[in-house]
Amino acid sequence: MDTLASLSIAEITGSLAAGEVSARDIARATLDAIDAANPALNAWTHVTANRMLNEADALDTLRQRHAPLPPLAGVPYGVKNLFDVAGETTLAGASLYSERPPARQDAWAVAKLAGSGAMLSGMLNMDAYAYGFTTENSHYGVTRNPRDLTRIAGGSSGGSAAAVAAGLVKFSLGSDTNGSIRVPSSLCGILGLKPTFGRLSRSGTHPFVASLDHIGPMALCCEDLSAVYDALLGIDREDGFQADRPTGPTLPLLGRGQEGLRCAVLGGYFRDWCDAETTHALDTVARALEAGDEAIFPDAALARSAAFILSASEGGNRYLPALRREPERFEPLSRERLLAGAMIPSAWYIQAQRLRRYLREQIQPLFQHWDILLAPATPCSATLIGQENFTINGQELPVRASMGMLTQPISFLGLPVVTVPVNSLGGMPVGLQLIAPPWREDLCLRAARALEQSGVVKVTTARVK
Amino acid sequence: MDTLASLSIAEITGSLAAGEVSARDIARATLDAIDAANPALNAWTHVTANRMLNEADALDTLRQRHAPLPPLAGVPYGVKNLFDVAGETTLAGASLYSERPPARQDAWAVAKLAGSGAMLSGMLNMDAYAYGFTTENSHYGVTRNPRDLTRIAGGSSGGSAAAVAAGLVKFSLGSDTNGSIRVPSSLCGILGLKPTFGRLSRSGTHPFVASLDHIGPMALCCEDLSAVYDALLGIDREDGFQADRPTGPTLPLLGRGQEGLRCAVLGGYFRDWCDAETTHALDTVARALEAGDEAIFPDAALARSAAFILSASEGGNRYLPALRREPERFEPLSRERLLAGAMIPSAWYIQAQRLRRYLREQIQPLFQHWDILLAPATPCSATLIGQENFTINGQELPVRASMGMLTQPISFLGLPVVTVPVNSLGGMPVGLQLIAPPWREDLCLRAARALEQSGVVKVTTARVK
Repeated sequence: MDTLASLSIAEITGSLAAGEVSARDIARATLDAIDAANPALNAWTHVTANRMLNEADALDTLRQRHAPLPPLAGVPYGVKNLFDVAGETTLAGASLYSERPPARQDAWAVAKLAGSGAMLSGMLNMDAYAYGFTTENSHYGVTRNPRDLTRIAGGSSGGSAAAVAAGLVKFSLGSDTNGSIRVPSSLCGILGLKPTFGRLSRSGTHPFVASLDHIGPMALCCEDLSAVYDALLGIDREDGFQADRPTGPTLPLLGRGQEGLRCAVLGGYFRDWCDAETTHALDTVARALEAGDEAIFPDAALARSAAFILSASEGGNRYLPALRREPERFEPLSRERLLAGAMIPSAWYIQAQRLRRYLREQIQPLFQHWDILLAPATPCSATLIGQENFTINGQELPVRASMGMLTQPISFLGLPVVTVPVNSLGGMPVGLQLIAPPWREDLCLRAARALEQSGVVKVTTARVK
Repeated sequence: MDTLASLSIAEITGSLAAGEVSARDIARATLDAIDAANPALNAWTHVTANRMLNEADALDTLRQRHAPLPPLAGVPYGVKNLFDVAGETTLAGASLYSERPPARQDAWAVAKLAGSGAMLSGMLNMDAYAYGFTTENSHYGVTRNPRDLTRIAGGSSGGSAAAVAAGLVKFSLGSDTNGSIRVPSSLCGILGLKPTFGRLSRSGTHPFVASLDHIGPMALCCEDLSAVYDALLGIDREDGFQADRPTGPTLPLLGRGQEGLRCAVLGGYFRDWCDAETTHALDTVARALEAGDEAIFPDAALARSAAFILSASEGGNRYLPALRREPERFEPLSRERLLAGAMIPSAWYIQAQRLRRYLREQIQPLFQHWDILLAPATPCSATLIGQENFTINGQELPVRASMGMLTQPISFLGLPVVTVPVNSLGGMPVGLQLIAPPWREDLCLRAARALEQSGVVKVTTARVK
């Protein structure tokens, strides 16, 4: 089982179906590897060993009966600790919730994965309330980057990225409000999919900003990412934000390479606010995708400001009763931001929502020319744990807020993105966003697959001792 | 042409088709009657005489060619002065807009009516910005109630109600954010339809509260109201709030009386906050509709508070730049409300929007038992012009805010309503709301028609000298 880290999802399900390995072997090996690596990594806040072994045994029973196996049979995974898992407490990274009653049922997405035969290893660390880009959590500790333990994993889905990058699970679920899937995927060097706003059900996840929250998968290769995305598709009538959205293509057409994809690089803001190494990575990917043109989204900075306002206002509103009742239990890194957010004038909030509707229309013409827009996912590769500032574009900026400055304008528009990692000159990976028009996740995945086929994107796992 | 006021829409189009009258005769008679009555009434802020005569001539040309006539051919109407009319300035009741350039094209609804052969007499007075329930407009004067010129017409579509009640036009268009069609319909003793939120296109109307604005027709009988509503139906892709809504039934099934309609009276809040005369009118209508049951919507007061917050916040945001630039040009009766509204904490606004979504679901079970819920449209009949307060339920309340207290919770839920007038014991009319489930305007119209057929609702026009 030493090779588990290097197998794809299809290889695992294939081995299981062929009887080369049992589901219990995989579960046992996964739990052992987590036990060994997690003290250094701090990716898991809770390991669901019993559930995982039970799920494994159920699969092995199916095998013994020669019954057909579901599509993700025997594949180990983890979820950000804001997904409800039946019988476990949903923390959302917050000490505030440490004593709340266990969830009565799985989140919609977790139930779908359970139904697909995936095996849940546990719940993964995050920034408190999903309000941060570094997973430096004052209550549950910092999650370390498996590629360099002195560096941040990014956030807020930092545990989800670290767990996958370390090869301990084959995929994970994260959530992305302003960049929380894409930033840690970039800094840990894995692939992440933030789907179109409204695509995947959020039922049973602890919410942060109803207007901007997305959920999505993180994985080591495009084929794995597609397989999980496919398992997560479906309409959930309980999710008022999801219902009535087009269902779109299921498993994307893969394997055509970059042929037929018209790609451009987002210029201006997105080129200005990244360092030389990231620019180099961007240019490498742009060449591989023959993205010679530059596209301009002139209101990117404005979109980011509006996303800040929506996040602070809705996040602030959500936590206001608790902030009044027990402020001392709040994450010190975000308590004042939440309080201030609830007091933002309603006129600002309304203007931000109006801008969102307006800019969603303004971005459409770009997609008449191009299928994919390229932009860095983070301004730079992973910074050191505890580092307060970095210098980008000649300006000193706060790491915790600015690591998401390139993802934030894109999620504000609700566009689907796959972020793919490239090793930067300094050795640490950095991610690039492959951005498609609404409901065209298939185009993001096709572009990512083309980059794998051309060898530009090649993810290996990091061994954590 | 003295009898124009007593003819229904079908009778006018019939006379025109039969050659008993020309469209120009109707237009001329309408314009003369407006000239005579408007100085006392102050319903019109601008008369579009040339347009009306041109529309008449075009119809007469059709007639001479024996071409088929459109469904509202020759029917005179007016629109609240927040509908764009090509070549005219859209005032929205505001001095602020007195010098703005003329509209380049008709509002979507006005274009539909023009295409249906209706003839536009002009634009009708309203509360400034549609923010009021009395049409006491500091810049354009008070609109008087044609049934008693010392009393208010109600608002904000006061001109639209007075013009129809005085028999000067066969119908009018109003807008309703918190009650602005239903309140003046009640106080002037006519019928008004506030459709389901999202049903009729608002394109080309001056907005007030995007989350709550509706447009709709006002008329003298149910058949006329249905004919105009039918002409206004249709999907307008430019109206982002309207697109993708179900189109539903067009012309309602009329003539079945109250048979098959399950009606209940809304109790609690809606019974508490009206005077004895209005209660008497309600009971009369309830008897006619066999509405023996009482239904309870326990969160009515909360819904009203939330509607206040949405209105003040979105209205405040809309006018904030102008309030900063030229506060002296604002309606003194609403300037401070708008300024304060823009400063409401975003958390209140977000909670109000969340409550709206929640209560829209909470009201659904009532409609499993009943097709129509009955409630008064106003707490009492028309008060005196300039009167600041009235006493309802033992409490002294401000007329300008409280005249809408029974309509506001219903529009917050987005439900369709037809308001029908009943003469109260004191001689002045008062309106009752016939409230149906979403997208079931046909049920409201059927209930209204049943009340006409039983003789409980019988509208005559008021002669203004």
